[in-house]
Order: sequence, then C-alpha cells, then structure tokens
Amino acid sequence: MSTEQKPEAKDVVFIGKKPLMAYVTSALIQLANNPRVLIKARGLTIGRAVDVAQIISRRTENSGYSIGEIKIGSEQLQSQDGRSRNVSTIEIEVKRNA
Amino acid sequence: MSTEQKPEAKDVVFIGKKPLMAYVTSALIQLANNPRVLIKARGLTIGRAVDVAQIISRRTENSGYSIGEIKIGSEQLQSQDGRSRNVSTIEIEVKRNA
Repeated sequence: MSTEQKPEAKDVVFIGKKPLMAYVTSALIQLANNPRVLIKARGLTIGRAVDVAQIISRRTENSGYSIGEIKIGSEQLQSQDGRSRNVSTIEIEVKRNA
Repeated sequence: MSTEQKPEAKDVVFIGKKPLMAYVTSALIQLANNPRVLIKARGLTIGRAVDVAQIISRRTENSGYSIGEIKIGSEQLQSQDGRSRNVSTIEIEVKRNA
C-alpha cells in the first residue's frame, strides 16, 4: 500500500540494528516484486550491508541474484551539541540475474 | 625495498585497528608513487575502509583523487575450534584523477 505510493523508496532496504536475517528476508521479499533492490547503510552498519548483500548473492548463486553497482559517500550529521560531523555511507545494488 | 619485490601488493592498504589517519597517510604516500591504490578490509573494519576512501577523495576533490571500482566479497575463515565461517570483504579503488 504505502510502498506503492513511494516508488523511489520501495526498492530500498536500510540497514539498522535488527538481526541480519531480518534484512535478508526484507530484501528477498522486495526482489520478488522488483528487478533490483538497494541495500543502504551508514557508519557502523556498513559492514552489515555487505554481509546482507553477500548472503543473498551467495545463497542464490545458481539462479537468482547478483551484486550490481556499489556506491560510497558521506553525509553530514548534526550532533546534539550543534556540531556537524561526516558519516560514511554505502549503497549496494542487488539485482535479478538476466 | 621489500615493496619493490612484491609488485602485486605495493598498491594495497589493508585496514586494521590503527587510527584512521594512519591509513589515510599510508594511502596518500602510495598514491604519490602509483596511479591507484586499493583499500581493503574485512569484517568489522569494512566501515573504516569506506571512511578512509571518503577522507582522501573529499579532501583532494578539486585536483587529486577519486573513488574507482568497488568490490565486495566473502572469505572463509577457520576459527580456532576448527569450524569455518564467512567474513565479508571490501576492496575500494582510489585513483589519481586523469
């Protein structure tokens, strides 16, 4: 429902602090409907985004999904004391094999 | 000396547990001699590899270096109890601007 009203967001899985397999499942569900999904993370969860992408691509190696484009970047965060600091970001595309 | 005898390794910075700027400096020194350097990390240090690459490319934005190809993968590690587990890896190319 709400995912259909936000087409730019519906193919994104944002990595947080849930168990790893929660994001794997969430990405696989999205990949059942979309040809690709973007796995996004920032800061300390960047390594977990790589884990999620690897689990999906390794377990579906023969038929399913593979890693596409990977982008890294920085975002400015405002901390509570008013100072800003940079945090690194990553965006990993996982796509259905052609 | 020893770096000249291992041509396949001389353009690699492997991220460990030193302060972040130690790897930034190390990569910049290698980039003074080579057109590109690979920043590699695995497991928990993957986020730090992204930090290092971002610091270099942001601070040298106008003239210097930019992010090239990014690869992710998995390696099998043998733990002390004899079981093997997978650890995610990342490899970020930083290259001299043309």
